[in-house]
Amino acid sequence: MKATTREKLLGVSTATLCTALFKRGLRNQFIQDVHPGNTQRDPQTPNMVGEAYTLRYIPAREDLNPITVFQDRAHPQRKAVEECPPGAVFVIDSRKNPRAASAGSILVTRLMVRGVAGIVTDGGFRDSPEIARLPFAAYHQRPSAPTNLTLHQALDINVPIGCGDVAVWPGDVLVGDGEGVVVIPADIADVLADEAVEMTAFEDFVTVRVQQGQSILGLYPPTDESSRVAFAQWRKEHGR
Amino acid sequence: MKATTREKLLGVSTATLCTALFKRGLRNQFIQDVHPGNTQRDPQTPNMVGEAYTLRYIPAREDLNPITVFQDRAHPQRKAVEECPPGAVFVIDSRKNPRAASAGSILVTRLMVRGVAGIVTDGGFRDSPEIARLPFAAYHQRPSAPTNLTLHQALDINVPIGCGDVAVWPGDVLVGDGEGVVVIPADIADVLADEAVEMTAFEDFVTVRVQQGQSILGLYPPTDESSRVAFAQWRKEHGR
Amino acid sequence: MKATTREKLLGVSTATLCTALFKRGLRNQFIQDVHPGNTQRDPQTPNMVGEAYTLRYIPAREDLNPITVFQDRAHPQRKAVEECPPGAVFVIDSRKNPRAASAGSILVTRLMVRGVAGIVTDGGFRDSPEIARLPFAAYHQRPSAPTNLTLHQALDINVPIGCGDVAVWPGDVLVGDGEGVVVIPADIADVLADEAVEMTAFEDFVTVRVQQGQSILGLYPPTDESSRVAFAQWRKEHGR
Amino acid sequence: MKATTREKLLGVSTATLCTALFKRGLRNQFIQDVHPGNTQRDPQTPNMVGEAYTLRYIPAREDLNPITVFQDRAHPQRKAVEECPPGAVFVIDSRKNPRAASAGSILVTRLMVRGVAGIVTDGGFRDSPEIARLPFAAYHQRPSAPTNLTLHQALDINVPIGCGDVAVWPGDVLVGDGEGVVVIPADIADVLADEAVEMTAFEDFVTVRVQQGQSILGLYPPTDESSRVAFAQWRKEHGR
Amino acid sequence: MKATTREKLLGVSTATLCTALFKRGLRNQFIQDVHPGNTQRDPQTPNMVGEAYTLRYIPAREDLNPITVFQDRAHPQRKAVEECPPGAVFVIDSRKNPRAASAGSILVTRLMVRGVAGIVTDGGFRDSPEIARLPFAAYHQRPSAPTNLTLHQALDINVPIGCGDVAVWPGDVLVGDGEGVVVIPADIADVLADEAVEMTAFEDFVTVRVQQGQSILGLYPPTDESSRVAFAQWRKEHGR
Amino acid sequence: MKATTREKLLGVSTATLCTALFKRGLRNQFIQDVHPGNTQRDPQTPNMVGEAYTLRYIPAREDLNPITVFQDRAHPQRKAVEECPPGAVFVIDSRKNPRAASAGSILVTRLMVRGVAGIVTDGGFRDSPEIARLPFAAYHQRPSAPTNLTLHQALDINVPIGCGDVAVWPGDVLVGDGEGVVVIPADIADVLADEAVEMTAFEDFVTVRVQQGQSILGLYPPTDESSRVAFAQWRKEHGR
Repeated sequence: MKATTREKLLGVSTATLCTALFKRGLRNQFIQDVHPGNTQRDPQTPNMVGEAYTLRYIPAREDLNPITVFQDRAHPQRKAVEECPPGAVFVIDSRKNPRAASAGSILVTRLMVRGVAGIVTDGGFRDSPEIARLPFAAYHQRPSAPTNLTLHQALDINVPIGCGDVAVWPGDVLVGDGEGVVVIPADIADVLADEAVEMTAFEDFVTVRVQQGQSILGLYPPTDESSRVAFAQWRKEHGR
Repeated sequence: MKATTREKLLGVSTATLCTALFKRGLRNQFIQDVHPGNTQRDPQTPNMVGEAYTLRYIPAREDLNPITVFQDRAHPQRKAVEECPPGAVFVIDSRKNPRAASAGSILVTRLMVRGVAGIVTDGGFRDSPEIARLPFAAYHQRPSAPTNLTLHQALDINVPIGCGDVAVWPGDVLVGDGEGVVVIPADIADVLADEAVEMTAFEDFVTVRVQQGQSILGLYPPTDESSRVAFAQWRKEHGR
Repeated sequence: MKATTREKLLGVSTATLCTALFKRGLRNQFIQDVHPGNTQRDPQTPNMVGEAYTLRYIPAREDLNPITVFQDRAHPQRKAVEECPPGAVFVIDSRKNPRAASAGSILVTRLMVRGVAGIVTDGGFRDSPEIARLPFAAYHQRPSAPTNLTLHQALDINVPIGCGDVAVWPGDVLVGDGEGVVVIPADIADVLADEAVEMTAFEDFVTVRVQQGQSILGLYPPTDESSRVAFAQWRKEHGR
Repeated sequence: MKATTREKLLGVSTATLCTALFKRGLRNQFIQDVHPGNTQRDPQTPNMVGEAYTLRYIPAREDLNPITVFQDRAHPQRKAVEECPPGAVFVIDSRKNPRAASAGSILVTRLMVRGVAGIVTDGGFRDSPEIARLPFAAYHQRPSAPTNLTLHQALDINVPIGCGDVAVWPGDVLVGDGEGVVVIPADIADVLADEAVEMTAFEDFVTVRVQQGQSILGLYPPTDESSRVAFAQWRKEHGR
Repeated sequence: MKATTREKLLGVSTATLCTALFKRGLRNQFIQDVHPGNTQRDPQTPNMVGEAYTLRYIPAREDLNPITVFQDRAHPQRKAVEECPPGAVFVIDSRKNPRAASAGSILVTRLMVRGVAGIVTDGGFRDSPEIARLPFAAYHQRPSAPTNLTLHQALDINVPIGCGDVAVWPGDVLVGDGEGVVVIPADIADVLADEAVEMTAFEDFVTVRVQQGQSILGLYPPTDESSRVAFAQWRKEHGR
Repeated sequence: MKATTREKLLGVSTATLCTALFKRGLRNQFIQDVHPGNTQRDPQTPNMVGEAYTLRYIPAREDLNPITVFQDRAHPQRKAVEECPPGAVFVIDSRKNPRAASAGSILVTRLMVRGVAGIVTDGGFRDSPEIARLPFAAYHQRPSAPTNLTLHQALDINVPIGCGDVAVWPGDVLVGDGEGVVVIPADIADVLADEAVEMTAFEDFVTVRVQQGQSILGLYPPTDESSRVAFAQWRKEHGR
């Protein structure tokens, strides 16, 4: 992803990106049933944007997951937290199981301090009230206090995974807003960002017009020539 | 619904209405797992009240739902948004599927500007953070960024539908508060509003008494004569 | 539970308690999919702590559950609300069914006024917006307006129950924070509280260090001797 | 239940009984998602008919459910198996959880030998292939090999329970056929059996007519006078 | 659909048809979680093939669905059963809800006698043991004894519906085998049948070769020239 | 696994093995909601026994999974089918998603011909009627006609996976009977087989006694000395 791409993706919505992906035949890139951990999120919070760095969990077997496993510095969960590149998004395949935690506030804080862009799991976080108060993007299904060892065994770092029914390949670009998280295949991130910026300009124009009382017919989409003219004029006026 | 009925329904809770319906043998009128889109909703927000105007979705077939369908002014979703009567509630049968959106902020804004009373879907909204900030009643299951074309085909306008496991007939009266949405059959809306106003007066009286430390036994329900006397006195004093 | 135990449990998290329970082989003590009714809960709210006083629901049969049953002062729901000891936690087995309410604001207010420590159901509350504004701990799955008679028959008071897939025995100690509710077997509550206080001191120390930029390796858990030394020093300095 | 009632119930279907219950306002008496353990069941197998004798499970806590608990002769599961009256139906509330067994072939065989009429759980049986081959009515959700101690703690004998979302009161009459199991409140079992026998005669008559090519209109229900006449004639001819 | 198309579709599998649909970008045409009612179905049973004739159910409201509604000859369920064209497939949208029946043996027998090709619901049948023994294709989710009035209100005849998450348009061609049911859009049924016949010939050839011990590499798909030659030879020998 | 271990495991049930695992603290080794594909399975069919050879699927992305991918001989699904060792069990992690197939009859036949011991998926098979008739152990959740490319991307061969909520490590011993499939950690397979043979002898003895009318109290478990004596005698007589 180009630096300008990251910047562009900070200002477009996951909804707009989903439509751009849909136009390319990619219908299943929105991570299902995963939400911002901070339910009182400020709407001005910028998007989470970063390349996927993944962690794969499998079901825990009791004898392999006593509390002592964390004494091993090579434990994949701890190792991944220390090695995830700054600017990346840490994505966990928790098999959509939120009955035990995927991670807690200490690890999430460590990721934040290390400059990671955000964390996503299709399971749940523990210490979720603390995580909600961090100035850090954290997406999960629902709060979950039990330690991850209860149900999850951390296994692989940076392999392709599933998360919320979406394929996530290392390096894919993840974008998160107040709605949720979308996964953009790495090779189309730049072009998709461009397209989404264009779409966003048009949607902003339409929103203004609708707030002013205009019908959506002929405007959205702009099948009326007058809509296209008005949009061109609006772009000029607003420098978009 | 009489104009006075609408006014009465602005001030009673969905819980009270469910009990009134239960007394008439209607046990299944609360739309299941559908919530206000604005999770930080001001408790003073008045209820959503209006007659149902419905939209039916069926599963989308890929060849029938390219992005270009919206260029058709007769597309049922767009047509319905422009034709829904002011004061009505726009209700969508999304087959309880929130994996793609039922509608987004532009259409919801258009409904708001047109004077519609609110929107309800048993699926999800996209642009949900924007919708949450509109001064408009919008109820759904959970946020969902993918365009509705991904999984939903808009088909019928103003036919009887299911929404959240409840039958919704055009013209039924929908009432929504901070808890959710209840469906009142059109022919009993007036009488039910009267009954609910009475019940609300009593519940308010009981709440005051309970806050003051009185036991619920003999008070709620008022099997003690003294409770009935006290309530009559309270009504007189408070003009209820 | 000793009085000091209650005090200790006010200041430790459900996540920490789950780990302490996990170390003892108790892997399934967190009530699943049950959340604070107040989604805008102040993070400084003290924990809910109290001994379980239980109410068991079974499915309602229509002929046994007309609205008139509440005229019976011995109706188990009403009786339990009046008899639950101050300081206890009122726990309802709703068979994880939130399609009708477990209780509403009047009963919850009564429990609050009577000095009960909190209420937990694996179903839903009605009047949930009112309940959310009470200065009272109330945990449920989701809001639900229909009266409990619609689907639940109150049956037994203070028997062992299931709640959110967890066994709750009368007298077990329930602790609730912003994340959810954990069930501590009565006979280990005192020792577990001690252990959790110790763990919390260490976690607070680790959090400070991580915020300062230290790696979690060797620190969490403290496999480096230097971490243990630093923690001892920190405890002394902070009187923990 | 009268002896003649039992005999009548051997020859009517659960579907017919559900309709008779529906006419009395009892809409929820069919145990949901519970099936005959023998999927190759001979259609001539007589119905299971008997009065409910119940066993209640709650979630298992690990420390209370080691394998050694079965050494206690008073363990509720074992005690119940030995004390269930001949002719009764043994019904288990497994909280609809089939992830561990409710019972296995040895206990089921013991019930059979003791003359019990059948066994029903809303969980699963282990040794299900053996149970399927026993000449004994056994209904469950799906096969499940893990011992019940894994997830279930046997607690109460012969208390009211829920089973497959239906209330089961001790003494209620359970009837099972190739479709599933219906619960008849004890006080209406006799009259319902009479009614179901009448309905069955009519349904048999209708089936013959439909097989012969007659339209259902006017016949089912018999709104045509000619249908009522023909049915009266058919009853006379067939001694029904 | 041409008569020859019907004949061709009698001899190809739903799996083969799904692959042919997948190649055209139609990924979601297999009705989910719907199975042959006869679990002991003879593998030689010919496919169900016919054009969709649909019935739409919405949730039942108690006051609109007393048992007496069937006295109305225009009741949509009864009317549809009498008017469904011979050779068609009767498809019911039961909103994937099997907790009450979609239809019972008398109506299914009537459809059979009238020459209808089969019946499909995403709910359940009552009298399922009787239906399983009829020489008639009947597909559902699971057995369900309660009358349809309990939860379903029959509403519309021959409108587009959803069934098992698939869009079914009147006139679409439904094909059912021992695995389940696939929906073929009407306008491609003829060409798809041709393609599926070709694919089936190749799959039969491959199966023989694999049974004889050949590797699938180069054979399936036939990337080896020798595989294509052998297949051409096999077709000639077997007149396929 | 020793050769004698395989032989022993052919004659013990998954239920017995689950109990032996439970005694060692392994409570979660039964693959959930996975069943023999052949629902009319002969009860005399020997168990499936073999070491796990795994295949991991992630969600399919449309652009990466056109039908042409199978032309690649290195496609992991096809490669795995050709490389799975004879005697092993082929286990697929389908993320519990049966909405598209995990495999079909041609690949399953190839595995059978190659001498593989069986196949297990927590998704579904296509061509399931054909697979049901093969003399080969095949376990899945439910039939599913759509090609695996619709929803699954084959990714990794012989890595640790989850299957039906159980961890499966390559080399673990899988045992399947008419009930389902249990996963035995490789390092305890030999000792567990021994233990299960002992347990089976005792269970067979108990079954005989129960069939003869003996109470389970004191017999199962054998807390009565007389039971232990009788068992010793029975073993001698029956050479067990």
